[in-house]
Amino acid sequence: MNLLKPGERVDQLNSRGVKIIQSDHVFAFSLDAVLLAAFAQVKRHSRVVDLAAGNGAVGLFVAPRTDAPVTLVELQPTLADMAKRSVTLNEFKHVEVLTTDLANTPDYVAKDSVDVVTCNPPYFKVSPQSETNPNQHLALARHELTTDFETVCRVSADLLKYQGKLFLVHRPDRLAELLSTLNAHQLAPKRIRFVHPKADREANMVLIEAIKAGKPDGIRIMPPVVVYTEDNQYMTEVAQLLGK
Amino acid sequence: MNLLKPGERVDQLNSRGVKIIQSDHVFAFSLDAVLLAAFAQVKRHSRVVDLAAGNGAVGLFVAPRTDAPVTLVELQPTLADMAKRSVTLNEFKHVEVLTTDLANTPDYVAKDSVDVVTCNPPYFKVSPQSETNPNQHLALARHELTTDFETVCRVSADLLKYQGKLFLVHRPDRLAELLSTLNAHQLAPKRIRFVHPKADREANMVLIEAIKAGKPDGIRIMPPVVVYTEDNQYMTEVAQLLGK
Repeated sequence: MNLLKPGERVDQLNSRGVKIIQSDHVFAFSLDAVLLAAFAQVKRHSRVVDLAAGNGAVGLFVAPRTDAPVTLVELQPTLADMAKRSVTLNEFKHVEVLTTDLANTPDYVAKDSVDVVTCNPPYFKVSPQSETNPNQHLALARHELTTDFETVCRVSADLLKYQGKLFLVHRPDRLAELLSTLNAHQLAPKRIRFVHPKADREANMVLIEAIKAGKPDGIRIMPPVVVYTEDNQYMTEVAQLLGK
Repeated sequence: MNLLKPGERVDQLNSRGVKIIQSDHVFAFSLDAVLLAAFAQVKRHSRVVDLAAGNGAVGLFVAPRTDAPVTLVELQPTLADMAKRSVTLNEFKHVEVLTTDLANTPDYVAKDSVDVVTCNPPYFKVSPQSETNPNQHLALARHELTTDFETVCRVSADLLKYQGKLFLVHRPDRLAELLSTLNAHQLAPKRIRFVHPKADREANMVLIEAIKAGKPDGIRIMPPVVVYTEDNQYMTEVAQLLGK
């Protein structure tokens, strides 16, 4: 059975062996997803939900670490379909894909039942000046056209057990808003890692762990992720994650 | 004239040539002050106020960069006296020291008149469990016994001109509270630098620049400061600042 449609390919992270169906025309996971999956703490019995799953990369990357159900939630049927075929390709029996607005997730997954929520949400606010991608699939993945960070926090807080953890990746320019919105939903930011393209460059991503009903303050700023050396080679940590 | 009292010494940052009267028994500036002074953007005509000045290190380090008045504000008479003698030692005619609670600063410095506020405030909240230093000078410098971050923000917002800048150093574990308190006082966090003892260690200091009436969001996470190499040598940037 050929699981691929025209324009699609299969990418594999060597270090984990998970295969992901990708398409540059529709959606292809990138370093964000790889770093988020590595940042997330998933244990053998962790019930996992991945919100705004795209083609399923984050959920698929963490799936081998747990025996409990993993639910991927993606609004766009084309992307959800790619994720479903990747689930088949990897023969993951414990992974399901829901094709729905992430706001509807509590209709399918019981409240207070989830150990780990992961989310690589759309990064950019929509404003009258926003230039969204003319490719509708990419526009929805990048801009807050159908969901926003407040919704991600509300749904995550609903789904998570007491002391359950949300792991997300976002843009550092929204840091103040991210932290205040998390706290407003009783999701206490706990560990933060900034991702710098090079050691002497500003961060372009931030990884955040928040704990449901955790204590406020006590934030730990972890060692930075530096992606490239001065001469454009992957730094060791990133090379290992990418299997390069 | 001998400006030193028993137990005091003069330290000098070679790279800047400023002399500071120090005392391990009372108060000695440390890397926090050096990094904050380097982080602060002080121009030739910048009117500067340094709140919670201690022995005056931050204000004295930035003083050579401006011709406009620099006001150091310190509650403890012993420390303020050290700062005054350091001003004399350096022959700074444009630097004054106020011995008062920083909350009273607007009684001495006109509101909306200041270009740059610097502050290396007490880092630790006081709680019933807090163990404060039995040395009262050090306890006041480290714990929020006589002032707190909300007061620092309120006073800074009062003093600063429109688009004036606050530069502060604090502890990263309070990051969420720092950002929300700044924003609550219309001080928009703009640039943030984390300080890591080593590249693979968590940050133990955070440098923050906030702009009065600046736009919310748009935070830039600057390249991290890493203090030591793996084999415990100062990294180049820090060695240069310390004149080592």
